[in-house]
Amino acid sequence: MLQSPPAAPGMGIEEIDTPALLVDLDALEFNLDAMTGFLHKAGVRLRAHAKTHKSPVIAHLQIARGAVGQCVQKVAEAEALAWAGVRDILVTNEVLCPVKLARLAALSTITQIAVCADSVAGVDAVAKAARNADAQMTVLVEINVGADRCGVSPGAEAVNLARAIAAHPHLQFGGLQAYHGAAQHLRSPKEREAASLASARAASLTVQQLTAAGLSCAIVSGGGTGTFAYDATSGVFNEIQAGSYCLMDGDYAANRIDPADGSPRFRQALFVLTSVISSPRTGTAVVDAGHKAIAIDSGLPLVWNRPDLRYVGASDEHGKIAFAPTAPSPGLGERLWLTPGHCDPTVDRFDWYVVIKHERVHGLWPVAARGGMS
Amino acid sequence: MLQSPPAAPGMGIEEIDTPALLVDLDALEFNLDAMTGFLHKAGVRLRAHAKTHKSPVIAHLQIARGAVGQCVQKVAEAEALAWAGVRDILVTNEVLCPVKLARLAALSTITQIAVCADSVAGVDAVAKAARNADAQMTVLVEINVGADRCGVSPGAEAVNLARAIAAHPHLQFGGLQAYHGAAQHLRSPKEREAASLASARAASLTVQQLTAAGLSCAIVSGGGTGTFAYDATSGVFNEIQAGSYCLMDGDYAANRIDPADGSPRFRQALFVLTSVISSPRTGTAVVDAGHKAIAIDSGLPLVWNRPDLRYVGASDEHGKIAFAPTAPSPGLGERLWLTPGHCDPTVDRFDWYVVIKHERVHGLWPVAARGGMS
Repeated sequence: MLQSPPAAPGMGIEEIDTPALLVDLDALEFNLDAMTGFLHKAGVRLRAHAKTHKSPVIAHLQIARGAVGQCVQKVAEAEALAWAGVRDILVTNEVLCPVKLARLAALSTITQIAVCADSVAGVDAVAKAARNADAQMTVLVEINVGADRCGVSPGAEAVNLARAIAAHPHLQFGGLQAYHGAAQHLRSPKEREAASLASARAASLTVQQLTAAGLSCAIVSGGGTGTFAYDATSGVFNEIQAGSYCLMDGDYAANRIDPADGSPRFRQALFVLTSVISSPRTGTAVVDAGHKAIAIDSGLPLVWNRPDLRYVGASDEHGKIAFAPTAPSPGLGERLWLTPGHCDPTVDRFDWYVVIKHERVHGLWPVAARGGMS
Repeated sequence: MLQSPPAAPGMGIEEIDTPALLVDLDALEFNLDAMTGFLHKAGVRLRAHAKTHKSPVIAHLQIARGAVGQCVQKVAEAEALAWAGVRDILVTNEVLCPVKLARLAALSTITQIAVCADSVAGVDAVAKAARNADAQMTVLVEINVGADRCGVSPGAEAVNLARAIAAHPHLQFGGLQAYHGAAQHLRSPKEREAASLASARAASLTVQQLTAAGLSCAIVSGGGTGTFAYDATSGVFNEIQAGSYCLMDGDYAANRIDPADGSPRFRQALFVLTSVISSPRTGTAVVDAGHKAIAIDSGLPLVWNRPDLRYVGASDEHGKIAFAPTAPSPGLGERLWLTPGHCDPTVDRFDWYVVIKHERVHGLWPVAARGGMS
């Protein structure tokens, strides 16, 4: 059952039902402009990752500013975007299941679709789906550039897989998926730069061997909100697949930025609006946002612009707020803005974004691919 | 957008699209029977907590076995149940927001509704909503019996609040909400018993003072899957609000049980079915269930019946599986059954339960109150 939106356009903040997922439109647009501007100067394309926002509205805002398309992690996300008119979608993940691949092949009749593989069995599965649908499908080879998650080894193993793709009449070799997730969250710019350079070297080596084998890489995709400044100037990546930059979260905000690298400072655009529902004891208040409203896998939320308050513990539907015993308690019903530690799974808990501009509800956007498991 | 169900009735396990939320019907029914049987013998009522399952189907299975109704944590959960014919619902939480209270008052025209308060402002808010709807609403006083979350102090403070409720022409004093969440997860039975006894003493003291003030407690509600055996025999609680027992999770399974207390051992009934999507290196496989498919706030999932495999890390849509380098890798596409560390927020990530019996898809049940934030 789709939940009703917690607000209506024109309402004031105090009228929004809580907990609610807020997006600050000015901050969002600042972030969108900043990333596009930076990457444009660097001469690389942005293919923003929709796994963060799960929203065709935000996808179109990114594309209107110059993004070449969108990345997704799930077939259900590709569907939500393709059905909303997004025209160039890269599934940055292995898809093996025939039912899912049939859905991707069907989408390829209305939009440009590419998908990744890191095994011969994976290539064969895509080929079978393409043949069954009498479609042409583009496949990228995912290489492991340091995250040690999916991906074949850079170099010969990737070339072999690319050959298998190129040899198939229903497939087209699209290039390399070379994303290093863990590198995004290294705190010091030097560590992130080093990890980015190592990824770029692995990708570059593979591109050279592919070129020698007569295989060209239309796409060399990688990078994220933590490393894009280095990835974009590496001369190797031609597409950056950053996602979180548009909304931001506590974890990315904790990354230290090197003022010398000229990269933008993104603004916090995503909040969970919560209300105080209990003020039971000195130094403690309880709010209505717990595990089901906010992700804590990358740390507890922070209370925005309230250095006097700390979110110290979550249960399913409650959050405990601590403050100095001598300080005044937040009032019953008072609204607090929480910034999540991790934006992606927080967004995925909600059906609606409440878009805020000038302290009012500017609009409602569906989190269209929410719960898109498959 | 409601997601399509990942299976159809009659399918075999291998045909279910992944990740999917599975419920083993035999295990679920065993758990439902076991709890009802135990509490019936102890002479206390079960008002099972729907925040775990969010399913009117499971609610009705509980009620058919003798549960007097359901507990919920959110107004949206109360709506999902009331609209599906559940006739007696206790909101075990403070509700202060006028919009939410108006919805509860509206529900009270089709079902029996009770809600909690732990402040005079909270009582006034319910009273206003009841008066506006020309309805009668039942209010319980929440007391803090050790969890240090919501709730007034046991004794005089609770009596004062109960008097305020009873004095209002549109309200009825319904009793005490006396739940100790943290006690449920203490590992040793002795610790849980001690916490349960302390909660029962606090509730008992309050009941006595209320009785002396001429206020009777129709409901004294508390207990959970960790402490119900002690709560039920305390002679104080007349309703047990356990929720997780029907589905179970890794956290509750880690509680040690005293064989002497005669309480049932619940079976694991909830699983996240996942597929291997990459097998990139010796000792590592990657599955398609990460943060967006399974809650890790109470620990990483376990791989059911596969002591050779360990789920060692989650990212948004990936889980990393480790195994001995000398052991065979799970095959690409192979299905694994994960047991979540925490059932409630895991269920809340999915739109559908896939119900399994005799190794086949027995049915599909909507997680009707999923995402019910308000």
